[in-house]
Amino acid sequence: MNADAIAKPHERLAAYLTEDMAAVSTLIRERMASKHAPRIPEVTAHLVEAGGKRLRPMLTLAAARMCGYAGPYHVHLAATVEFIHTATLLHDDVVDESEQRRGRPTANLLWDNQSSVLVGDYLFARSFQLMTEPGSMQVMQILSNAAATIAEGEVLQLTAARNLATDESVYLQVVRGKTAALFSAATQVGGVIADAPDTHVQALYDYGDALGIAFQIVDDLLDYQGDTGATGKNIGDDFRERKLTLPVIKAVAKADDEERAFWVRTIEKGRQEDGDLEHALSLLTKHDTLSATKVDALAWAEKAKNALAVLPDHDVKDMLGDIADYVVSRIN
Amino acid sequence: MNADAIAKPHERLAAYLTEDMAAVSTLIRERMASKHAPRIPEVTAHLVEAGGKRLRPMLTLAAARMCGYAGPYHVHLAATVEFIHTATLLHDDVVDESEQRRGRPTANLLWDNQSSVLVGDYLFARSFQLMTEPGSMQVMQILSNAAATIAEGEVLQLTAARNLATDESVYLQVVRGKTAALFSAATQVGGVIADAPDTHVQALYDYGDALGIAFQIVDDLLDYQGDTGATGKNIGDDFRERKLTLPVIKAVAKADDEERAFWVRTIEKGRQEDGDLEHALSLLTKHDTLSATKVDALAWAEKAKNALAVLPDHDVKDMLGDIADYVVSRIN
Repeated sequence: MNADAIAKPHERLAAYLTEDMAAVSTLIRERMASKHAPRIPEVTAHLVEAGGKRLRPMLTLAAARMCGYAGPYHVHLAATVEFIHTATLLHDDVVDESEQRRGRPTANLLWDNQSSVLVGDYLFARSFQLMTEPGSMQVMQILSNAAATIAEGEVLQLTAARNLATDESVYLQVVRGKTAALFSAATQVGGVIADAPDTHVQALYDYGDALGIAFQIVDDLLDYQGDTGATGKNIGDDFRERKLTLPVIKAVAKADDEERAFWVRTIEKGRQEDGDLEHALSLLTKHDTLSATKVDALAWAEKAKNALAVLPDHDVKDMLGDIADYVVSRIN
Repeated sequence: MNADAIAKPHERLAAYLTEDMAAVSTLIRERMASKHAPRIPEVTAHLVEAGGKRLRPMLTLAAARMCGYAGPYHVHLAATVEFIHTATLLHDDVVDESEQRRGRPTANLLWDNQSSVLVGDYLFARSFQLMTEPGSMQVMQILSNAAATIAEGEVLQLTAARNLATDESVYLQVVRGKTAALFSAATQVGGVIADAPDTHVQALYDYGDALGIAFQIVDDLLDYQGDTGATGKNIGDDFRERKLTLPVIKAVAKADDEERAFWVRTIEKGRQEDGDLEHALSLLTKHDTLSATKVDALAWAEKAKNALAVLPDHDVKDMLGDIADYVVSRIN
């Protein structure tokens, strides 16, 4: 596949879904309003209109269309997914004490932690209102389960992230929680609302799960080798926040005693000094863990594409495959 | 009514509902578990088992029983209500930077703000999983609307609480959001799950709404005249946190220029000095606003009792009436 073909397939998908995406935007604006508390739409708009790609709601719309859905409720489910995502971002930035998101100051910095916590709660509640509207028990179960899995993954990350005993299987559990659970719920509910056969719904789940994992691994990799302009994040944020991500977990597994002492001091104890980030990067290079992490990301993207095989031919199916390639193309 | 008869009617109701309340406890313990993140049940247990009266879930069980419900799902709804309440407390303590709750150190103090935010999110998600289980659309709408109203009330409080322009009608809106919305949803869903007639469901809503408002006014009053041992809170917390509650709103309305300057400095600008709390208390006494606030609380309790009139005779109905008296008896 040449570079042009994989260039921004999410933009091709967005073009294909123009009307649906416009309906989602309208619904989001409508539902983020508040009669009594103007602070709510202010904070939400700051994040929702910061030019995110809206990949998650697009996945719901795409799955529903690919499965032949002709009703109106995929729009509600897409908006639900975006609200859950936005609520999670607001709370994440409080938890991580972040100062930048999507290249702009975070809401907790512009307003305060209080607003971020409470507006996040409001958006969670709004998402639950929205998800009841199609009247599908299965949809509500999938989405409320996803919300629980996300929170569980975030709590697990709190306790696991600074513990050098965290291995790749715990990392995967955290990633499934904090990222993949919403991707897989997003694609799955698109199939469910369209009344697709179980094998197709399962394929959509598998695609979303693998895509979400690939997406998060790429994110963790870019934290050590990305460029700040493109990612809107600073190199080494995860290191400074003492987060054990895949490149470091792989380096810890290969560490000699002296290296291990370095990781214990910087990650577990958090006693970081000037030059530590540079030394960390040199250890990742020495053990070639950035390359090994990249191999994992590519394998998950491949798994995502393979999951689509069982689904009938459709333009959207091709675009979803291209999106899996695109997600990992950021690290090529 | 003599003092014995109104003494702890919630304990009589708890005795009447012993089996149901035991089922709620079992369900709560079951659903607050987490396979992967032990931090979740630790934090939740700290709060859930701190000896709260569990008034809200009891109201759901009571309403369902009073309306003749014989199925199992009132237990799920009661647990839902308690999870929403617990999640709200965890987030409130972060927002207010509280250090004490129910006479014990808060979770944000014992663990950290991160755990309180994320475990709160987990409990919100768990509450939504639970509320889907009875399969009633109306129930889901009532409870997800309540969750949105609560968050909206909290955000409104953030912006209104330090603004001297906040009058009694805005105060009431905040109180309806932060407290009464969950009381009224708790009683209402008990009637809905029992398939009670609309007039009865409306009466249950009105009872919960008025009881919640009475409850919050009492809480705000006790903040200025309670005893720390009984409330587990310190006198003047609301003043120190610069919260405009009813006793102060009434005093601001009657303030002369000098008094108004005092409120502007201490509440709006937050420049508090030694002796300010004492001066604030003297102004509340001067304008007799603690008594006026008490009159309001009693009127709401009366309104709660009157709402019950339309419901058929039942032991539980009498106990609910007594609970309305009991809530305001704390300020007698």
